Amino acid sequence: MKIALTAKGWDIPAWIENLNKLLPEAEIRLSDDLGNLDEIDYALAWKGDTAFLKELPNLKAIFSLGAGVEFLTQEPNLPDVPIVRVIGDDLTARMCEWVVLNCLMHHRHSLRSLDLQTRKHWDQIPDAAAEEFRVGILGIGVLGLAAARKLQMLGYRVSGWSRSPKKAEGIKTYHGAAGLEAMLGETDILVSLLPHTPETEGILNLELFRKLAKDGPLGGPVILNAGRGKLQVEADIVTAIREGILAGASLDVFEQEPLPADSPLWDLPNVILTPHIAAVSAPYATTKCIVDQIRRNEAGEPMTGIVDRGAGY
Amino acid sequence: MKIALTAKGWDIPAWIENLNKLLPEAEIRLSDDLGNLDEIDYALAWKGDTAFLKELPNLKAIFSLGAGVEFLTQEPNLPDVPIVRVIGDDLTARMCEWVVLNCLMHHRHSLRSLDLQTRKHWDQIPDAAAEEFRVGILGIGVLGLAAARKLQMLGYRVSGWSRSPKKAEGIKTYHGAAGLEAMLGETDILVSLLPHTPETEGILNLELFRKLAKDGPLGGPVILNAGRGKLQVEADIVTAIREGILAGASLDVFEQEPLPADSPLWDLPNVILTPHIAAVSAPYATTKCIVDQIRRNEAGEPMTGIVDRGAGY
Repeated sequence: MKIALTAKGWDIPAWIENLNKLLPEAEIRLSDDLGNLDEIDYALAWKGDTAFLKELPNLKAIFSLGAGVEFLTQEPNLPDVPIVRVIGDDLTARMCEWVVLNCLMHHRHSLRSLDLQTRKHWDQIPDAAAEEFRVGILGIGVLGLAAARKLQMLGYRVSGWSRSPKKAEGIKTYHGAAGLEAMLGETDILVSLLPHTPETEGILNLELFRKLAKDGPLGGPVILNAGRGKLQVEADIVTAIREGILAGASLDVFEQEPLPADSPLWDLPNVILTPHIAAVSAPYATTKCIVDQIRRNEAGEPMTGIVDRGAGY
Repeated sequence: MKIALTAKGWDIPAWIENLNKLLPEAEIRLSDDLGNLDEIDYALAWKGDTAFLKELPNLKAIFSLGAGVEFLTQEPNLPDVPIVRVIGDDLTARMCEWVVLNCLMHHRHSLRSLDLQTRKHWDQIPDAAAEEFRVGILGIGVLGLAAARKLQMLGYRVSGWSRSPKKAEGIKTYHGAAGLEAMLGETDILVSLLPHTPETEGILNLELFRKLAKDGPLGGPVILNAGRGKLQVEADIVTAIREGILAGASLDVFEQEPLPADSPLWDLPNVILTPHIAAVSAPYATTKCIVDQIRRNEAGEPMTGIVDRGAGY
């Protein structure tokens, strides 16, 4: 078995080491030195270098090394083989950590508290109870549902929105355009875990922010985006924070990454930035998920996580 | 029914309002204007003014308004009536939030991340997985067990220590002096939720810190104390952080409160301070718990949360 690997800027030796360990029968070839293209069975890809995929006539499947797949679905002339998205338990757990941490940091006033500490000032600011917060999750797939469960367990009231109808026990679900409007009006903290598709591009904009609940425990709504940078209109976030339309935000993803040093986002009040590390899966955990799928495919069993190219996720 | 109330420095009108709402048949008398002492049935007390309790001949029970009871158990000449500790769901939920938030802030390098944001610097620091952390909880009563469950759900490996043997499904439990030593050696993050008793005073000291696991994902152990300030030797925490014996700490309680402005704790690296607000229950929630207990007692049913005066908690 021959596997093509491309992951510009990532720790390539770690990926190769883990692949060799978990799939010793495979030969790993980097995308800039593929040898005989007819021989490549599988491709493991991340953004930056995907044009070579169309040159592989006998490819059986393409794996995205992260949760995002838009760099593949938006690639023209991709061979007509399954695109497989890897959402392993490790990645899911890390995303849940980020969501829970950022909900709690806003809810428990961590930025203000750390600032008071810097000024050596003792001031007991009362906090609302978790059950006073209505958290709305945009995107209730594997990640969104897992995050919803953790938030519920901490006492938050959780709703979820998806494009098409979904049911989830104990979670109020909404769908479609009308459902989105309805959920936003009852949301104090909005958590975006949507994929990037033509429909979701720029969805986190001023018009949407204005529809969020204004009477929440923080005196205004808060947004958390760990989905994709292209979901958000950063100029609108800046305006919304400055004008008090949003009471706060946590962003892990950005229109342009790395976030340029002159972006006004860096020092907006009540805005917490992380450099696209909400859910960076360790090579071992991701490799294990991919190898499991390859083994299923080789055994004639169906793979899980196959992307719907039309929907874009 | 007559109820004596004392809560120096607290929002007395809010307590009276909630008591009137939930127990309209009771007359509330403040401790500095008690009228006929023979008439007082119950006392609701917090630190600062407890000497009057011994003057009440017909008292049926004393309620502590917070989770701590040492201001009562250490009071000489207290009437021989049940001391009842109020740990309602609201207080438990808030304590769990604080523990989860502070575990995640250390695990996910929040202080370093916020500092990088201040310097507009994009740097993707890898985080360990939650399952790489062994969290040891000192005190697995109602609060400790609830916190353990939340931490487990986020993927942390959780152990718990108590004075006497306790079992809890899925949690490795330790007890007694030998058990403490054993757990510390396998603990990367130590969470202290112990009560203040003569045995626990000063337990968080340099000798204990040196027994914690040194090979954890943060390069050293971290302690979280939301129990009582008297559990910790602050001079030892300062030494341990400065000498790298501890990699970090989160403290919600202090030897002296408010923490004096000249305490070296304020600006120690990797130390997160909160001003004794980990679990400040709203008057409504606490009042509801107390009123439930009073109604049980009046109906001849046993009250829950009665303190063992010998053990001190």
